[in-house]
Order: sequence, then structure tokens, then C-alpha cells
Amino acid sequence: MSKLITRSGSNFTESFRPSSRTSKTPVSVTRDILKVIDSPNVISFAGGLPDDSLFPVQELTEIFQRSALQKGPKLFQYADTQGHPDLRAWIAERYYHGSSPEEIIITSASQQALDLVSRYFIEEGSNIILERPSYLGAIQVFSSYSPNFLGVDYDPEEGPNTEQLEHILRTSAQKPKFFYCIPDFQNPSGGSYSSKVREKLSEISSSYGLPLLEDTAYRELSFNGNIPISLYDLDPERTVSIGTFSKTLSPGLRVGWIRAPKPMIQDLIVQKQSMDLHSPTIGQELVFQFVSSSKYEAHLSKIRDVYKRKALHTSKCLQDTFGSSIPFRVPNGGLFFWLEFPKSIDTDVLFRKSLQAGLATVPGSAFYIGEPVRNHLRWNFSNASEEETEKGIKRLFDIYSSL
Amino acid sequence: MSKLITRSGSNFTESFRPSSRTSKTPVSVTRDILKVIDSPNVISFAGGLPDDSLFPVQELTEIFQRSALQKGPKLFQYADTQGHPDLRAWIAERYYHGSSPEEIIITSASQQALDLVSRYFIEEGSNIILERPSYLGAIQVFSSYSPNFLGVDYDPEEGPNTEQLEHILRTSAQKPKFFYCIPDFQNPSGGSYSSKVREKLSEISSSYGLPLLEDTAYRELSFNGNIPISLYDLDPERTVSIGTFSKTLSPGLRVGWIRAPKPMIQDLIVQKQSMDLHSPTIGQELVFQFVSSSKYEAHLSKIRDVYKRKALHTSKCLQDTFGSSIPFRVPNGGLFFWLEFPKSIDTDVLFRKSLQAGLATVPGSAFYIGEPVRNHLRWNFSNASEEETEKGIKRLFDIYSSL
Repeated sequence: MSKLITRSGSNFTESFRPSSRTSKTPVSVTRDILKVIDSPNVISFAGGLPDDSLFPVQELTEIFQRSALQKGPKLFQYADTQGHPDLRAWIAERYYHGSSPEEIIITSASQQALDLVSRYFIEEGSNIILERPSYLGAIQVFSSYSPNFLGVDYDPEEGPNTEQLEHILRTSAQKPKFFYCIPDFQNPSGGSYSSKVREKLSEISSSYGLPLLEDTAYRELSFNGNIPISLYDLDPERTVSIGTFSKTLSPGLRVGWIRAPKPMIQDLIVQKQSMDLHSPTIGQELVFQFVSSSKYEAHLSKIRDVYKRKALHTSKCLQDTFGSSIPFRVPNGGLFFWLEFPKSIDTDVLFRKSLQAGLATVPGSAFYIGEPVRNHLRWNFSNASEEETEKGIKRLFDIYSSL
Repeated sequence: MSKLITRSGSNFTESFRPSSRTSKTPVSVTRDILKVIDSPNVISFAGGLPDDSLFPVQELTEIFQRSALQKGPKLFQYADTQGHPDLRAWIAERYYHGSSPEEIIITSASQQALDLVSRYFIEEGSNIILERPSYLGAIQVFSSYSPNFLGVDYDPEEGPNTEQLEHILRTSAQKPKFFYCIPDFQNPSGGSYSSKVREKLSEISSSYGLPLLEDTAYRELSFNGNIPISLYDLDPERTVSIGTFSKTLSPGLRVGWIRAPKPMIQDLIVQKQSMDLHSPTIGQELVFQFVSSSKYEAHLSKIRDVYKRKALHTSKCLQDTFGSSIPFRVPNGGLFFWLEFPKSIDTDVLFRKSLQAGLATVPGSAFYIGEPVRNHLRWNFSNASEEETEKGIKRLFDIYSSL
């Protein structure tokens, strides 16, 4: 009898009792926007999508054929958790002077790298430090581990406010686990840390024994070739550096990495074992064969040129349309403009009205831990065509003017 | 000064303070064994490795070419978190009568499916029920979420002891979150649940509102074509079913899935977003194009035939070498023999001595939550050649005889 009653009731809520984690993980705004932007009338400047006409599809197809022929079934068998040894060696040599392939673990792009690092460091209530604004995908995954977020103001021209950082470190009762930094062409603001701030951060990290979690996702996308010294180079022992091939080669392949001191890598390998055994072999092979070929540098030059041109074009359209009514920086790299509206404008409202009018962007509030600043909009310039950009900016201006 | 002192000390342990999770996640024995088996003199029967000569490398290469040509750059762009819509439709239709593609989420093979399910259900201290023995990869990932493990004895001829299960459900102060089941050709024992046990489980699940987590990894590998009714078919509302293409097609592609009631899938999508945004597009496309082609059934027949032949050959070698000194079941599917030694034999010792003599297996103790049973050995028969199998079994007998 009790059986019949149970069967007829709301079985799901009676039987399925999810962990508190499920209610603590915020839905990512951009992923939700990605779902609507396939509608025919929507122009999107929302996601951090690379221009897919730049993907070397033909070369990747040839690599697949060649590797399948040379390596055969091993490419499709279980593989080592730490990842493709040649790819790890290539990453160590290119990005981490003085490091070894043993200090690298391959991940399913930088989102999994962030998850792995969260698993390694965060307990419920652990203090972690982020800049304000910061990358929303990082905020999402960190949130699922229920940390205590501590914010440091961020200036796109300089970087994080190091005085605030030191104040936190001097005064917080529980020592923070790490400071999550995006030093180059930050998502969302497009800004980069000055050399002075980089050095100061390294000094603080050393004095307080604070690990720096350096996200290098946009580092290769410098329009003028100037890349300031990395946090890793300033202090290899206290920096955990994560990277990805999503912006330079292909996001769909989902290949990224973590460089960390060896004892941490050993722990990360065990965590990754438990998460997915290893990342797919074929994606790692495609990436390795392409980036280690003579074609990679030319490919990078090409995407830097295209993105620089698109950034300048976006800047021109903004200037022509908005005049001096909203200030913006023209980024020197990366994929984003960070548009600042008058304080009286709530960009959550602007975002919703835009979306109704077939224009997708991301409201600035999505990028803040703590109290959000509400008058920015993140504008991706890498994916849309020049024509769409012109049209999109005019559409934005119309909606803005009608508020 | 304090800075200089910090720099000269043990920077790592001072600065890096990992979460308690890192010490709670056991290292997987098989993954560690996988690292040594590349040595020239080691014959391995340890991993659950498919016979890689059966991977359809040529067909997958052709699919890559064709899909790259037809779908172009979209194959390498960011994609939907829930996964390849056509692949989800195929899985729903083939395995889950009456379900829809919205009830499926694609994962990076079944290990990530287990991680996702853990994230969804397990809080520190949550009761979860496993059979004894159970799959060691599941024990590993569950452990990283610090649950309270409850064990139910398992008989390879019948399945889990349903009286013990009911006793647990009647008496445990805190209701268990789920019962993790491997109904078909279990890893490690090779056994399957009887129809009676399946029905009884469904009854218990319904009476107590207990979700069943059904792992179908080996379900397609039935040597005689007999596949008993799935737990999903008996009770779709309370069953969460996970599956993988690792054993039927290729483990290196890392493609698997979860079928669950829609509200749970919605939560799983958010969790997966935070974990890795989505699984690689190309692997999902390769799998979909192959399994939906006319070649898949012939491929399945072929691997079933080869594994049946290898199982019978392994059985013959065991019989010829060990006579009646150790009892074993000849499996009707899956990838494993579960060898039972006399109670006086500690298979941890047998395992270590074997490894020194160049023979890799997995000791039974690795598969138990709680107090391990110590006189079994898991023997994989799918990967080695017939010649290696003969040699390996003789080697095992010699070491066993010398104990």
C-alpha cells in the first residue's frame, strides 16, 4: 500500500535529495545567452567566441589522418592521466622557463583547470581573493565549493589594487588560499597589469606566502607583440599558472593546462583521475601536432592581425555612434571591450532590453563578487563580422538612448 | 627580512595549503599499474582495456574528414553544455524507451558521469550504498566527496543481497542518497543481477524512495545476446543510468552519458558548465556518426565474438593450469574473470609478487568499501593476446604455488 502511495506522489522531490552544492552553483549568464543566440535575428557580442573562420580545419584534418596512420589504435586507447608527454614538454618549454614537463598537467581547457585548482585548495568557507571585476566562469566554479570571496578593486590601466590586497592579508583572520589573477587582456575588461603591479604582487606573494593563481587565457593575443613578464617568471615557486588553446587554436577541442610545483601536480593527478581518468587523447594530439609545427607562428600572427583590425573597427563604430558619451579603452589584446555607461544606467536593464531587440551582450554585474558595479557592459569583438558590429553598435545606441 | 626568511624556507608547504579533499581521494591502483605496464617484460591483465586492434581507426578517420568538410569550423567552436543533440537522441532511443533527448547529458565518459552524480548528491557524511565488491573508480570519486559508505554483499550469480539493502533502509538514521549498482557483467566480478533481484530492487527503490544509480558500462558486451531488463526499464522515475562508449567503441575518445529525470539533468548541466563548459565536440561527432551508421551492429558483433573467444581461451588456460584448485565463473559478458583463491591466500601479496615477476593484475581488496575480502584477483581478458594469456596464467600459477 505504501508502495502505491509513493508511486503516485511527486516521486522526484521525494527521492532525489541533491547536495547543497547544486543551489550554490550560479548558472553562467553567457552559457544561457549562448542558447538564444542561434535565433536568426539575434546578433551576439556576448560569448568569448573566437572567430571560427580562423580555425585551421584543413590542417587539423590532415593531422588526424597522419596521426591515425602513424600511431594507430593507441590514439583511441586509455592514456596517461597527466596528459600527452610531448605536449607537456612543448608547454613547459614555451611558457615556463626553467620548468619541466612533470610540472604540467593537461586539462579539458581552462574551465577544468579552474575546477581542479578549486578541488585542490577550497574547503567550505576558505578565503580566496579575486579582483573586481573577474572572469565569470571562475566565479561560477569557485562558488560551487562555497568559499568566502574577498574582493580587490581592479583598474584596467594598472591591475589590482595592491594596497587593498595587503590590507586583506594583514587583517584576515584566516589566511587566504590564493589570489586569482588575470594579468593579460583581462576578461572582462581587456586591461593588463602594469609591470610595477606585477612586481609588487610577486613581493606580496613572497612576503605573505600567498599562492598566485595566474590565468593566462589571453596572453598570446597581444596586438603589438608586447607581453609583460608573467607572474610565473617573477615567482615560479608560488605561482600556479593555467592556460588554454581555446583562444589561440580551438575551444571545441577543450585542451588546456596547469603549471604548478611538482607536489601540487601529484595531488592534481589523483583528483583528475577521479574526475575523468584523462582528457581525450585525440584533442591533445591534434593540438600538439599543430602548435609544434612550423605553421603555428604564422597562425598566431594571423589571428592577432584579424583581432586587432576588429578591435579598431569596433572602436571606430563606437566613436562614430556614441561620440564621447561613453568612455572606453581600446584594448591592446584579448577579445573584449568594457563599455562604461553613466552611473545612472543599469546595464542589467540595458542588457535585457537589448536581448529583446536581438542584441546579445553581457551585463557588467555578472563579473563581480560581492556588490556588483552596474554600469558596464562586456562587448566581445572577435566573433561578429564588421557589418554585424556596425549594426550591433547602432542597435545598442538606440536602446541606450531610449532608456 | 621576513621576506628573505620565507624565500629560503620550504616555500611549498608554507604557501600551499590543500583542502582535506586531497588526502581523502585514494590513488587508483589500476591507474598506477598502468604506469608500469609499459616496461618490456610486464604482461598486463590489470586495466579494463579493450582490445585496441578492434578500434575502427579507418572509419573514424573517414568520419573526421567527412564531418570537417560538412560541418566545418562549427566542429571546433564552443558548443552546448548538454552535448551533441543527435547523439543524445540516439542514446535516448536505443537505451531508454519512452525517454527524450532532454533527459540525457553527454559526459567525458562514465568516470565524469560518476563525478557529476557525486557532485549532485553527496554532502560530507551523506549515506550512499555500494555493493561489495564494486567498481574501484567509483569508490575513488565517491571518496573524494567524503560520504559515509554503506555496503551490501554481492553474489556474482544473483546480485546484491536485497535483505541487507532493506535492513539498511529500515534502520539507517539518515536516508541514503542512492544505491550504486552495476547490474550487467559487473566490474570486477563479471557477474550479473538475476531478473528476480532486478525486480526486487525496483520494488525496494519504490517503497523507500531510493534512487538507483545504474552503471551500464558493460551492458552491450553480452556474449550470448541475452540482456536482462534494465533498472531504468523497471523504474524510469527513480533510476539514474550512466553509460559509456569506452568499452564498445573507444575509451580514448572519452564519451559517455547520464540519463536522469529532467529536473536532475537541469542541475547537472549547471554543474557541468562549471566543470568544463562542455565535452569536446569532435569526440561526440565521431561517436555519433559511427554508432548511427550501418557499421555499428557488425562492429558490436565482432567485439562480442572476440571477447567471448578470449574468455573461453582464458577459461581453458586456467583449467589446464590450475585444475580445480581455484574456483572461477566463466563470464557471459564484460571484460573480467574474478579469481577466488583459498582463504589462506592474501591476494595483495600475490599481486605484489606477480608484479615483481612481470605480471600485472588487480588485487580484490581494491574493490571493497569497508573491510576488504582478500582472496580474489581481478583478471582482465580483453586486452592480452592468447599467447600472452597462456604465459600469464602459467606465471600466476608458479607464483601462487610458491606462496
